[in-house]
Amino acid sequence: MFDLTKVLLGPASVELGRNLAECLGGEAVPVETKSFPDGESYVRITGDIAGEKVAVVQSTYPPQDRHLVQLLQLLDTARDLNASELIAVVPYLAYSRQDKRFRPGEAVSVRTIVKLIEATGAGSLVTVDVHTDKILDLFRIKAHNLSAMAAIGEYFSKLKLLKPYVFAPDEGALERAKTLAGYLGADYSFFQKQRDRETGMIRTKGRDFEIKDRDAIVVDDIISTGSTIANAASILREEGARDIYVACTHPLLLGGAKEKIIAAGAKEVIGTDCVASDVSRISVASVIAEFLRKTL
Amino acid sequence: MFDLTKVLLGPASVELGRNLAECLGGEAVPVETKSFPDGESYVRITGDIAGEKVAVVQSTYPPQDRHLVQLLQLLDTARDLNASELIAVVPYLAYSRQDKRFRPGEAVSVRTIVKLIEATGAGSLVTVDVHTDKILDLFRIKAHNLSAMAAIGEYFSKLKLLKPYVFAPDEGALERAKTLAGYLGADYSFFQKQRDRETGMIRTKGRDFEIKDRDAIVVDDIISTGSTIANAASILREEGARDIYVACTHPLLLGGAKEKIIAAGAKEVIGTDCVASDVSRISVASVIAEFLRKTL
Repeated sequence: MFDLTKVLLGPASVELGRNLAECLGGEAVPVETKSFPDGESYVRITGDIAGEKVAVVQSTYPPQDRHLVQLLQLLDTARDLNASELIAVVPYLAYSRQDKRFRPGEAVSVRTIVKLIEATGAGSLVTVDVHTDKILDLFRIKAHNLSAMAAIGEYFSKLKLLKPYVFAPDEGALERAKTLAGYLGADYSFFQKQRDRETGMIRTKGRDFEIKDRDAIVVDDIISTGSTIANAASILREEGARDIYVACTHPLLLGGAKEKIIAAGAKEVIGTDCVASDVSRISVASVIAEFLRKTL
Repeated sequence: MFDLTKVLLGPASVELGRNLAECLGGEAVPVETKSFPDGESYVRITGDIAGEKVAVVQSTYPPQDRHLVQLLQLLDTARDLNASELIAVVPYLAYSRQDKRFRPGEAVSVRTIVKLIEATGAGSLVTVDVHTDKILDLFRIKAHNLSAMAAIGEYFSKLKLLKPYVFAPDEGALERAKTLAGYLGADYSFFQKQRDRETGMIRTKGRDFEIKDRDAIVVDDIISTGSTIANAASILREEGARDIYVACTHPLLLGGAKEKIIAAGAKEVIGTDCVASDVSRISVASVIAEFLRKTL
């Protein structure tokens, strides 16, 4: 029986949390938040959650450490206030790219993050398009990775795209492009990363495809500096694509990444509210709500 | 038997860690540290610590969340590298002023911090002049609070002070002033906080003391904005004190606090390396080393 009744609005994900509460028909519980003059975060849960099953919605995009500490404060406080069960909804999981030890003595930081979330009382975790599924195995609590592609697909299905073609910026991201293409009834392909023998630089090369006078969507899980994506956009422009869209689940968009991608020929950069940004116009609330309804 | 052989140099406390290793005759283990472009911390322990008893030295002064996450990464990694025992040396313990719930639903954040340090494998904790001793009771592991007054006393005993008089900026800090006065064979007193009946402002008033042509030391555990201390310094100047020194364990010195205190009449503001700052010329390494020698 579905009995989630309260959705805690973590300061990094207030809008997403509100959307989720609405999708679920549950009550949104605001969190009063401030920073002390010395920089410490203060959080206060403003509703009664004793005996309730509570989703704590707090993504951990940059500044990661601040958002992470707020998440841990909220989980620990919610448990202290006698919530009956805590579901940590952390759409962007910080440190998930530090998942291997390449050199002796390196921190496998995502393992530490997993321990911290468990130590503060989460009974399960929900994340979205995490860097690699293997991270889920690190959890002793139940951990679920959802795909944002249904939400991204819904967004693009409303645009009148011309014979759309979906691209992954590299082969590793092909499954995601295939999924999105499935929602749109579109073709899909990927770009290949190649190392230039003379300069040692990584370049992205398009494979054989016919994109002339068709709309293109380049989709990835995360856009950081945006270099690979910008390269793909510029190849698509050279090949005669009509409109080029760039979409991602986690728009980190560091240091002018959006401007770089637009300058390379993209018409629009769009992301989801897993990461709050000025391009986060797609909400994953419905994806998370559907999952919670099914499993709780 | 004293068998601590390795001292891990956390990025927030490299100099203090080096001093501590030297005082103990142990080996300093450097930590390679960097920030990724997205802001995540990377840490790498560069020495072999398997089977060793290790002190992880990492203070958590501002930016607190960053320093805290680095501490947790280091503890978890050190345990993963099979250190036999971990002593967390955290001279400034972040969030220790959030130790009570004043309004319903507030996070008692220091409790969360305690859980996180324990969850990542610390076997014991050493801190210095913590906000309140009661915090130690929150730990299930052994937690020790040391006083920096011996180190501060040693510093002032080398200056040729004229009939020194030690002041606490408020009554709650009197014990600390008394301790420092004991090291210097000095008199001691405190200032009283009074609420102005008309304006509601808190003002600091001196009690009866004769400070004319004597040197004064105002000592506190922590200086944040420095307003109370500046007020005390300005009263001492009005009362005809010769040189006015301001000393503290944790020089946070937010937003021009040092300049404010100097402008109020202090000759010098001095702090310890519990918090790295440009006034941190007193090291607590000898205090920590002496404690570790006695108890390990």
